Amino acid sequence: MSELRKDPVIGRWVIISTERAKRPSDLKLEPERPRGGFCPLCPGNEDKTPPEVFSIPDERSGRGGWAVRVVPNKFPALLIEGSLHKRSEGMYDIMNGVGAHEVIIETSDHAATYSSMPAAAITNILLAFKNRLMELKKDSRLRYIAVFKNCGEAAGATLEHPHSQLIALPVIPRRVLEKIDGAQAYFNYKRQCVFCDIIGQETADGRRMVAGNEHCVAFEPFAPRFPFETHILPRAHLEAFEDTPDDVMRALADIMSVVFKKLNASLGFPPFNFMLHTAPFNKDVGAFYHWHLEIIPRLTKVAGFEWGSGFYINPTPPEQAAQYLRDTADGR
Amino acid sequence: MSELRKDPVIGRWVIISTERAKRPSDLKLEPERPRGGFCPLCPGNEDKTPPEVFSIPDERSGRGGWAVRVVPNKFPALLIEGSLHKRSEGMYDIMNGVGAHEVIIETSDHAATYSSMPAAAITNILLAFKNRLMELKKDSRLRYIAVFKNCGEAAGATLEHPHSQLIALPVIPRRVLEKIDGAQAYFNYKRQCVFCDIIGQETADGRRMVAGNEHCVAFEPFAPRFPFETHILPRAHLEAFEDTPDDVMRALADIMSVVFKKLNASLGFPPFNFMLHTAPFNKDVGAFYHWHLEIIPRLTKVAGFEWGSGFYINPTPPEQAAQYLRDTADGR
Repeated sequence: MSELRKDPVIGRWVIISTERAKRPSDLKLEPERPRGGFCPLCPGNEDKTPPEVFSIPDERSGRGGWAVRVVPNKFPALLIEGSLHKRSEGMYDIMNGVGAHEVIIETSDHAATYSSMPAAAITNILLAFKNRLMELKKDSRLRYIAVFKNCGEAAGATLEHPHSQLIALPVIPRRVLEKIDGAQAYFNYKRQCVFCDIIGQETADGRRMVAGNEHCVAFEPFAPRFPFETHILPRAHLEAFEDTPDDVMRALADIMSVVFKKLNASLGFPPFNFMLHTAPFNKDVGAFYHWHLEIIPRLTKVAGFEWGSGFYINPTPPEQAAQYLRDTADGR
Repeated sequence: MSELRKDPVIGRWVIISTERAKRPSDLKLEPERPRGGFCPLCPGNEDKTPPEVFSIPDERSGRGGWAVRVVPNKFPALLIEGSLHKRSEGMYDIMNGVGAHEVIIETSDHAATYSSMPAAAITNILLAFKNRLMELKKDSRLRYIAVFKNCGEAAGATLEHPHSQLIALPVIPRRVLEKIDGAQAYFNYKRQCVFCDIIGQETADGRRMVAGNEHCVAFEPFAPRFPFETHILPRAHLEAFEDTPDDVMRALADIMSVVFKKLNASLGFPPFNFMLHTAPFNKDVGAFYHWHLEIIPRLTKVAGFEWGSGFYINPTPPEQAAQYLRDTADGR
């Protein structure tokens, strides 16, 4: 019999199929073929993007140039100029599309992946996120920054070159608010951070653990929406990603490297999304919020039931996914 | 400049791109090819599905047989037998996967669509929904029934034959609760149904209206997540779909026929999902909830930003989509 499981933060129920569970071999997709053609993000084509707002020099290859580069999105969803001009239209609320939309070019190597990059290269990407968060935080119109990655066409990527994105918003997105509200309700009742408690239970239980090091843990959540959905958190209570100390940042890069080696080896370089969840600006969530990274391999189609209900059917129990990932070598 | 718009029921913000707006011709997909092969839902193959739980005889073709048939899903996400057995695992909540998962075979004609079917055939489908809601409502373990349709492979359909589905759940899905909470908050403040007020404003404004008849209206919502997302509501305040009078049901079938003729003519028979939102069982929402049908053509890929944030970027303003649909003939 299948199970209904409830997410302990936002209270979302998911159906976990325990009987007809799908294994990685059932989920593996045909690998996407390289698209080829001109790449505006490759070295030498810097004039094809808007001028960079941040970069980290390449100090390892000996060839000079950049290791990571951040540029405004050429087709931004939001623009940094202008006033918010909040207004109503009858019963509806509306404001101007003020914000920022930037592209983090993660490496100069068009063909690199998180499993081929050295952990130090991933650290550079994380430092770029941190820098942009700290910089954009100074803009008092902005309330939240969503840092995310679409990798692979099936995950919504329109460019092949390794990149992630950030969208800085003048409002706090609904799902971030849900997480904050859930974490606050838990804190009001228990006087504990719900994420710290989850880390405690997952570490003690062990069945859903994927990897861990001194500063970070990676596990399959108890009520995942998708097969092989993986969460990474710092062990220490840290609400804002931009306040993360350097040694924790290096540990995060290290565990991301391990997790992606395992995911890519198990599932054949699946398309995936990740989303960094961190504290909003100018909102006191320090006692109960805890940044985390959600990684979602895109292996199943989301259909009408999921859209309409926010209720997910996941054909792979997280305990089985975690076991599989633990048993998969990370190449070290 | 783009706009940020807030959904008046659940408070979700969306980004509407007004500058680089996508027109239907930018969004049209290659039509999916017929898959062919054996169809377990076609007449003559009734023994390939579990025994039917409801059917409506075919009284129009003169050939006998059935017009609509409802059967349990052969691979159900939930099973009707068993006890809920609610329990905890440390901080997590869990229960058995008790519920129902049924398939509504909408017509005996494998190649039919909502735009080719006569409205009377759509009425039969709606009557099948009503019958199953009334029947399953008697089971005191169940709290909500999600009625939905996935049409086309890109929308998650695994069978080509016209069908919709229902999943009866022992919990109320998160997004249904969000809608109920939002509608209740609006009611507490205004002493009005938020959906009735939306109908009032949309009818008076007219820019987002797609179609209307005596009993129902169809419009593009003010803050749609997706291009050509279309909502249909009864004009009268009706919280539960199963309490809908027959003349309103016929008017709904009629407006669905019009809307799908327009969508299919504009967008070339796009894959789509619909979800019926109706009142949960045993919860007093009569004053402020109002059933509605959400139709979502699957024209754009949902990527990391949307997953992680619940924040959507919609490249087609609803006013333009509505204008386009109003200008498209419905074949009558």
